[in-house]
Amino acid sequence: MKIANVQMEPVFLGREENLDHAAHLLEKTSDAKIVVLPELFNTGYNFQNKAEAELLAEDYKTGPTSRLLQDIARENEQYIAAGYVEKIGDILYNSQLLVGYDGVVSSYQKVHLFFNEKKFFAPGKEFKVSDLGDIRVGQMVCFDWFFPESTRTLMLMGADIVLHSANLVLPYCPNSMVTRCLENRMYAVTSNRIGEEFGLRYIGMSQITGTDGSIIHRSPEDTEEVWIEDINPLLARNKDMNDLNNIVSDRQTDVYKIK
Amino acid sequence: MKIANVQMEPVFLGREENLDHAAHLLEKTSDAKIVVLPELFNTGYNFQNKAEAELLAEDYKTGPTSRLLQDIARENEQYIAAGYVEKIGDILYNSQLLVGYDGVVSSYQKVHLFFNEKKFFAPGKEFKVSDLGDIRVGQMVCFDWFFPESTRTLMLMGADIVLHSANLVLPYCPNSMVTRCLENRMYAVTSNRIGEEFGLRYIGMSQITGTDGSIIHRSPEDTEEVWIEDINPLLARNKDMNDLNNIVSDRQTDVYKIK
Repeated sequence: MKIANVQMEPVFLGREENLDHAAHLLEKTSDAKIVVLPELFNTGYNFQNKAEAELLAEDYKTGPTSRLLQDIARENEQYIAAGYVEKIGDILYNSQLLVGYDGVVSSYQKVHLFFNEKKFFAPGKEFKVSDLGDIRVGQMVCFDWFFPESTRTLMLMGADIVLHSANLVLPYCPNSMVTRCLENRMYAVTSNRIGEEFGLRYIGMSQITGTDGSIIHRSPEDTEEVWIEDINPLLARNKDMNDLNNIVSDRQTDVYKIK
Repeated sequence: MKIANVQMEPVFLGREENLDHAAHLLEKTSDAKIVVLPELFNTGYNFQNKAEAELLAEDYKTGPTSRLLQDIARENEQYIAAGYVEKIGDILYNSQLLVGYDGVVSSYQKVHLFFNEKKFFAPGKEFKVSDLGDIRVGQMVCFDWFFPESTRTLMLMGADIVLHSANLVLPYCPNSMVTRCLENRMYAVTSNRIGEEFGLRYIGMSQITGTDGSIIHRSPEDTEEVWIEDINPLLARNKDMNDLNNIVSDRQTDVYKIK
């Protein structure tokens, strides 16, 4: 099954331009069944105030970003995950939309907010795993990776692949996704952005990580890239490390003190 | 505060020889307040049957390994953590002893057993954190690292430093300890062995890892080494990443599904 990451450089607050550019990049992914775009790919990230975020906030179904991605997904017969500012009632979220052949599959509201995001967004209250027929995907946005509970929850909810939209500025995530995939025997598709915004420099290095912690592909630090890999998501269904160890049944939940 | 790891090559089933050798290596650590030796440093690891493990099993307080380590710890005015086969009643455990100036501080029974260990040992039922005056240490043995719940539990129990005795054969642990320390803002001292036993090859690469995920020191793959570093364990008390993120209070425990 072919999966793709799209590493791109959004223009800050330039939604129309970003949607055009993303549509162009997505043309190159038409072979892929699942494509992941970065966090806030359509707006840029580093809002200086809440009004900027609110300006481009959208409904998960009827907003211009959602409608475009739904059209492309239908055309390409694929699933697309992408970050955007979601508005539900009066509340803003840093969300990841997942659309498929038949419209919206799910919208996930980022659970772990980083730094200034706390000034603009409310935290999500639910991790989401969606059944796409043969495979199950879990959704994650950027800083969620830092908390091992995020990928653990998605694995225990049945995800084979983590769709991870990011705007990484710290250097740690790409190497740590090796541990996240290894400890959960899941795939992850981390799609990051490049470029700078008001002193924040994004690190690129989008990554496709295997169930054995292998780095299947890592994108460059400073150029856009569309990358497609052929993976076997059923590998994620086998949680046996060897004849005597299974990473799920070996968990000693009665011993952990993790509340 | 000075901490040390001791990377050594035990002789299989050669307890007397191993204790002599360890005593010699420990002479070089007398400056260090805390020293970590590998898992099963006194017996070797790859038992072919339970009788071999039982042969060298010991009481945590009165066994020859414990008595020697207590003597050295008293002499050097230091704490020593080291792996051994512990016998409690008729049950064997893969344990890590922690001794100090005044005798035994704690014995920790490995919670996550790897492969054939399940044939010989019972799993531990409790993680342990000990207060050593200025600092708090958590205990961990080898494969425990693989489960993020181990270090998470130790951090939430208040550990500043994880004392990690290992006999690593898979390649993943040293790099993954970066993630473990980063996500918990703790230090870790991973002391591994070198050499081969019946087809198992141990990877060395003992490591001291910082609260920021830095690799403060990594030992070579195939030679013994005693290494001392000066660290500031109080860094582990500050769980703030920045003015708005704290790695403990940012945990969204109501959202996690990790039982």
